[in-house]
Amino acid sequence: MQAARLHETGGPDKVRLEDVSAPEAGAGETIVRVHAAALNHRDVFITRGLYPNIVLPRTLGADCCGEAGGAEVVVDPTIGWGGDERVWKPDATILGVPLDGTFAEFVVVPQENVHSKPEHLSVEEAAALPLGGVTAYRAMFVRGKLQAGETVLITGVGGGVQTFALLYAKAAGARTVVTSSRDGKLERAKALGADVAINYATTPDWHKAVKAAVGAVDLAIDSAGGDSFAKALSVVRPGGRAVTYGGTSGDTSLKMFPIFWHQLSIFGTSMGSPADFKAMLAFVSQHRIKPIVDRVYELSEIKSAMQRMDDALQFGKIVLRIPQ
Amino acid sequence: MQAARLHETGGPDKVRLEDVSAPEAGAGETIVRVHAAALNHRDVFITRGLYPNIVLPRTLGADCCGEAGGAEVVVDPTIGWGGDERVWKPDATILGVPLDGTFAEFVVVPQENVHSKPEHLSVEEAAALPLGGVTAYRAMFVRGKLQAGETVLITGVGGGVQTFALLYAKAAGARTVVTSSRDGKLERAKALGADVAINYATTPDWHKAVKAAVGAVDLAIDSAGGDSFAKALSVVRPGGRAVTYGGTSGDTSLKMFPIFWHQLSIFGTSMGSPADFKAMLAFVSQHRIKPIVDRVYELSEIKSAMQRMDDALQFGKIVLRIPQ
Repeated sequence: MQAARLHETGGPDKVRLEDVSAPEAGAGETIVRVHAAALNHRDVFITRGLYPNIVLPRTLGADCCGEAGGAEVVVDPTIGWGGDERVWKPDATILGVPLDGTFAEFVVVPQENVHSKPEHLSVEEAAALPLGGVTAYRAMFVRGKLQAGETVLITGVGGGVQTFALLYAKAAGARTVVTSSRDGKLERAKALGADVAINYATTPDWHKAVKAAVGAVDLAIDSAGGDSFAKALSVVRPGGRAVTYGGTSGDTSLKMFPIFWHQLSIFGTSMGSPADFKAMLAFVSQHRIKPIVDRVYELSEIKSAMQRMDDALQFGKIVLRIPQ
Repeated sequence: MQAARLHETGGPDKVRLEDVSAPEAGAGETIVRVHAAALNHRDVFITRGLYPNIVLPRTLGADCCGEAGGAEVVVDPTIGWGGDERVWKPDATILGVPLDGTFAEFVVVPQENVHSKPEHLSVEEAAALPLGGVTAYRAMFVRGKLQAGETVLITGVGGGVQTFALLYAKAAGARTVVTSSRDGKLERAKALGADVAINYATTPDWHKAVKAAVGAVDLAIDSAGGDSFAKALSVVRPGGRAVTYGGTSGDTSLKMFPIFWHQLSIFGTSMGSPADFKAMLAFVSQHRIKPIVDRVYELSEIKSAMQRMDDALQFGKIVLRIPQ
């Protein structure tokens, strides 16, 4: 079968399309015939060696929609979360390094990770859902406990998780403030219902602009860390919450006084549990949420697809169509 | 009546004992005849101008045990918390600047802040309870959600809040790790049931010593901030919690990766709500917890009492006996 594989780190350019034998299912496992897959930053980070636990060569990819047992399915990409809702087991992992992933004609996964595709979604939309969808769900609702009527700040809108967060927030009846360094992404976010959109590149004191626009937010979610997280935290109302699900801009210097004096809560989150994944599917189906598909590439165009993500040009999810 | 008052900031030496007229109760207020009062770091910080909202001259003091309406009472020192359990109202305050406090023969407080003294406590023990007791209760149980069988790290044991935290943790069936820069305080903490005691001054890598002793902790509570909070957070297990209730050592540089990857939670806390205060009194009564009284001074010795706190020599609460 065709698969997009990585033999050595060094960037997206190192990914190769090759012919490998199709996987076989062991006990308790299912073979999914992949119809479409989607990219995550994780895939690019792995090509650069910027991820724990890299074992090569492997087929990349965490997300997919496909067919198993005659049904259209999506796959929960978190393998072996374990029984603790608070955190995954130390040996849990995500599809696509160190396990062979979804950028291939077939992928083998534990049976319990296979779920029916939400009926209202196309194959491409469903492929875009799993990792970003569950990460945003856990960040917004399980950790962030977003309520109807609250205001949420989503930094760096345009990435997969952030775009899901925006869609979820609207569906949950929350007001949204988004930031990006690109006006085009801010326009897209507004078209999707963002109430306030601020360019953090042209407005370095964007936290002051947030305060001027909405006073304060009940919840802030951020995956940049560094200065971005510190500024996001500074606009959280007393008694409010901030969620971090990444730290691409580095470590953060935090002022302790506002944290204890204003009784703030900071929640770290990553991926989601099996229960989170099921709750996410139910929420997406109930509210008929459609993942934003940025662009669809053929599997053979994998390098261009990864380059687009690496250049941060996308708004929503980048999808790969897998040859049948 | 006699009262220990501050007319200008400049340190504990600026506190003066003087004769002032006794307060009168307005609508919904109660006069408490103070039998004993207790010091908090807040009182020392105020003499230095290191606290928000300082209005002078005022009588210092947040804690007391006394008599009202013929009954022995303790006073909830948080005035006007409001209806939100998550955080106090912006205009809420603590007894003793900007309201006249408890280092006096009489203090006037809202009726609902007056509670029966726990029967098993002496007047001095009960005076030691309110602010430190409720701060520790909220930090450990309301924010930190400590459970029986868990392990909790308490940094800087010896202060009032930390000592309550140690007593509460033991009563709740938790294992405790404590730190201090003074061996004498560590010995006292061990005598009170601390399972592991580490001198952070002689062991600068004390977080490694914590790991070596207990692996990881479920909950860490810290009021130093800075390097202390960062090290405390580094020993929290995946899915675990850290509580900050102060930042005397300054701001903290936080590594974002472990926060989101290990799904940590960080909770800021300060004082406690009326519900927290009642729950604290019930917990203290149920477990017959006795606040640790470091030393009892006469009101006339207020400067020596404050100096002892300023020198961080105390273990537990410093109490003032008020002349009758």
